[in-house]
Amino acid sequence: MIGQVAGGSAMYQAMSSLGHAAESGYQGPITLGKAKPGASVVVLGAGLAGMLAAVELRNAGYKVSVLEYQNRAGGRSWTLRGGDRYTELDGTTQNVGFAKGNYLNPGPWRVPHNHHAMMDLYRRYGVQLEPFNQVNHSAYLHQTRAFGGKPQRFHHISTDVRGHVTELLSKATQQGALDASITAEDREKLLAGLRSWGALDKNYRYTANLHASEFRGFDVPPGGGLMSPAKASEPIDLHTLLDSKMWSQIGMGNMHEFHTTIFQPVGGMDTLPQAMARDLGGLIQYNAKVSKVEQNASSVTVHYSDARHPGAMRKISADWCVCTIPASILSQMDIQVSSAMRAGIDSLPYASSNKIGLEFKRRFWEEDEHIYGGISLTDLPIGQISYPSTDYMRPGPAVLLGAYTMETNSSYRLASLSPKERIRMALEYGSQIHPQYLKEFKCGVAVAWHRVPWVQGCYGKWSDELRAQHYQAMAQVDGRIVLAGEHLSYLPAWQEGAVLSSLDAIQRLHAKAISV
Amino acid sequence: MIGQVAGGSAMYQAMSSLGHAAESGYQGPITLGKAKPGASVVVLGAGLAGMLAAVELRNAGYKVSVLEYQNRAGGRSWTLRGGDRYTELDGTTQNVGFAKGNYLNPGPWRVPHNHHAMMDLYRRYGVQLEPFNQVNHSAYLHQTRAFGGKPQRFHHISTDVRGHVTELLSKATQQGALDASITAEDREKLLAGLRSWGALDKNYRYTANLHASEFRGFDVPPGGGLMSPAKASEPIDLHTLLDSKMWSQIGMGNMHEFHTTIFQPVGGMDTLPQAMARDLGGLIQYNAKVSKVEQNASSVTVHYSDARHPGAMRKISADWCVCTIPASILSQMDIQVSSAMRAGIDSLPYASSNKIGLEFKRRFWEEDEHIYGGISLTDLPIGQISYPSTDYMRPGPAVLLGAYTMETNSSYRLASLSPKERIRMALEYGSQIHPQYLKEFKCGVAVAWHRVPWVQGCYGKWSDELRAQHYQAMAQVDGRIVLAGEHLSYLPAWQEGAVLSSLDAIQRLHAKAISV
Repeated sequence: MIGQVAGGSAMYQAMSSLGHAAESGYQGPITLGKAKPGASVVVLGAGLAGMLAAVELRNAGYKVSVLEYQNRAGGRSWTLRGGDRYTELDGTTQNVGFAKGNYLNPGPWRVPHNHHAMMDLYRRYGVQLEPFNQVNHSAYLHQTRAFGGKPQRFHHISTDVRGHVTELLSKATQQGALDASITAEDREKLLAGLRSWGALDKNYRYTANLHASEFRGFDVPPGGGLMSPAKASEPIDLHTLLDSKMWSQIGMGNMHEFHTTIFQPVGGMDTLPQAMARDLGGLIQYNAKVSKVEQNASSVTVHYSDARHPGAMRKISADWCVCTIPASILSQMDIQVSSAMRAGIDSLPYASSNKIGLEFKRRFWEEDEHIYGGISLTDLPIGQISYPSTDYMRPGPAVLLGAYTMETNSSYRLASLSPKERIRMALEYGSQIHPQYLKEFKCGVAVAWHRVPWVQGCYGKWSDELRAQHYQAMAQVDGRIVLAGEHLSYLPAWQEGAVLSSLDAIQRLHAKAISV
Repeated sequence: MIGQVAGGSAMYQAMSSLGHAAESGYQGPITLGKAKPGASVVVLGAGLAGMLAAVELRNAGYKVSVLEYQNRAGGRSWTLRGGDRYTELDGTTQNVGFAKGNYLNPGPWRVPHNHHAMMDLYRRYGVQLEPFNQVNHSAYLHQTRAFGGKPQRFHHISTDVRGHVTELLSKATQQGALDASITAEDREKLLAGLRSWGALDKNYRYTANLHASEFRGFDVPPGGGLMSPAKASEPIDLHTLLDSKMWSQIGMGNMHEFHTTIFQPVGGMDTLPQAMARDLGGLIQYNAKVSKVEQNASSVTVHYSDARHPGAMRKISADWCVCTIPASILSQMDIQVSSAMRAGIDSLPYASSNKIGLEFKRRFWEEDEHIYGGISLTDLPIGQISYPSTDYMRPGPAVLLGAYTMETNSSYRLASLSPKERIRMALEYGSQIHPQYLKEFKCGVAVAWHRVPWVQGCYGKWSDELRAQHYQAMAQVDGRIVLAGEHLSYLPAWQEGAVLSSLDAIQRLHAKAISV
């Protein structure tokens, strides 16, 4: 989600300007009420949006069929483990060599606790969650042109930013710069607050002393017995700090979605879709490659073939259709919808993203560097390194996320390389942060989302203009067809967006179905 | 650890002024080298300090005996579970009624990842750690006199503090208040940094808009399909924020020891001492109440009785003695040490602390309020409420920490009440934050550390003056006796302090033992 802040905000503003009455968000699990006797729905796609639609419509009494292109459910909610094979668009196959228990989630990997629809789904299916470590104060910030390329600990940068900002504001306050805007009483409260928050000394200065080190960390920590006394660490001066560009790297965890508590499903992101697929059982038909969707006044007909043996066409008809196929794929199909909806489907580009999972012989980041989970951020083309938030201190091989790019130049560059070359690049760049990389490397797997056959991109990349032009038309119930998925939401790329889109779509579809 | 910041800092400063050469802290697991053939040690106390001393001395070849007053190892590293009985100093017994799997850690409960000696111990004994949730952005801050007593979400207060501080400093910067102290180029970088960090708008104002809400949270979050559009939340104005005193409550997680990643042992704090006790096996003699420790030029003799049947005295002799009995208890014994060490033992007061564990029928804080682990802080006498950092979303009863006080007036007040009255008080105050308390309460257990028979206090409470006067003498190897424990460290109350004290003490004891 890095770099999505500004764009996201613009999106929401564009949305607000559409003039909806502000009411409320997700209100908890839905109950659709009863379907008309004999009513049927065909759901296209067995990702989260499709499966949730199928579950709720089935529970309401609809006869439900789900067509899924792959031989598994979950879509982008996907986990790669040792023994898995994955083939990219050009036919390049990777055999995942990870040790038992290790995995990579190539798509979504985090569950914010304030994504209430997702939390309800996890609760409903009894999938165990464990904390995902988003902000680790001991992880690194890295800028190639700062500190001679030497990674800095997050806690040093974040404490020093707070220290310098509070010192500067204290100084300005004491010099009367705020006298016009706040009362004398508030000024005193502000100074006390700044001093405490910034770990300033009694003169409101941010300096090397043992109190400040209780926040930024010590050079020599307090010990026991007759050990060496504690030694304060030296803050980074303001100029160096501003020059380092690391300030821009400390704020990610302040975003609402990354606020603690943030979770991940124990064992991999596909545990929830697997539970949902078990719930749906025989309703899902796998290896079904849809090529055409027709509708008329009374039904929808979907034409598909066996994805493993293209050729002989099959078809299925139903009263209604929920289509969760990504617009990137849908635009390559023949689907009978309004020209306005079709224009939207054809116009929505998909964002580029890469993930590279690297397995190492041991958790050197924990053992050598005291980094337990969390994310190191870098301006190198790999973007970040994320350490596993599970099985802390377990001996033996472990998988970290060695690159995660989204809509950066390097994201396109990585997608142009073979998986092997991508992995080599992740190792080369990553070793600038962790020199242990080259000695400890075991194997890797690389996923470039534009090369993933069944989505050919990462998520629907709305610009303000596109959204203003097409979103409303795409989100309508068009005759007997409704679209759903993260691309039909204001939370692109998030599972919560896909699920909210699905819940909203099926409520409107059901309302129409019982009224006609 | 609340409220320990200022005192701690003063302590460290006092220590530095003693003029030690600053060198380094803990350097990893120790190896003592070989003991003299036949050399023996008696260790008093089977808490962490005592057991680690026993393990290392045994490994070096010493003949080791450990005397422990209780019928279990671990000392303050203690876990209370359903079925446990606990009797306070005045004879009041509590039978813990928690459901299976639920527990309270009355003493230490957190393992900072930067407490390297403890992390090494957990690794060495293969005890599984899980993240302890210290800062939960959705937990509450509560001040009885602010917001009509209504708890506020941490993320609102913390985002608004950052927003107002950055807006004020931007304003002062733009008005030239910093022109004398920073260059024009740095000023521009500072403004860009403030805008990004504080989620300010393009005019450097912190206002209600969708961008700021991406940090502080939305009133209506972005949805899917045709759901209501996102609605920005309204920041708290600066005056109200300063007046609320909540600013003082947001900084705890910025302290180095509370930096992510912070852990807890899976299943309770006593898992490590239990593993260490298994390692020591028959070397520990339980129910041994020490009353007298004598030494002469060649040996130490410890007199003790069976704690369950006081009367008949026994004694044990050894070449050396490591005494980890808290000073609060040791001061009531006859121990033959220098008058300087004795003066220290007699002078050190022990801090007051209370913990109250409350079991509720369900996790209403998760289900109703989206609070998964973490701590709500309040100015009520209960101090804080800490929600369990484990088994998230598990149905059925769960235990939260309903009060945690340390050296506050309420800490003394709680200790003056019976356990039942303490629990009633915790329920009464806690229900001001969680009205569900009264309906959902099952049972509770209360531990007032001044009433715990085997320590009669929580931790050694050094003042600067006391430390300057007595610490050095107490930490010496006194003839054949050395003291160890958190009270012989610069990290009072922390397990890390106890363990560093122990490692330092036995290294000096061993050096003396092989040289005489």
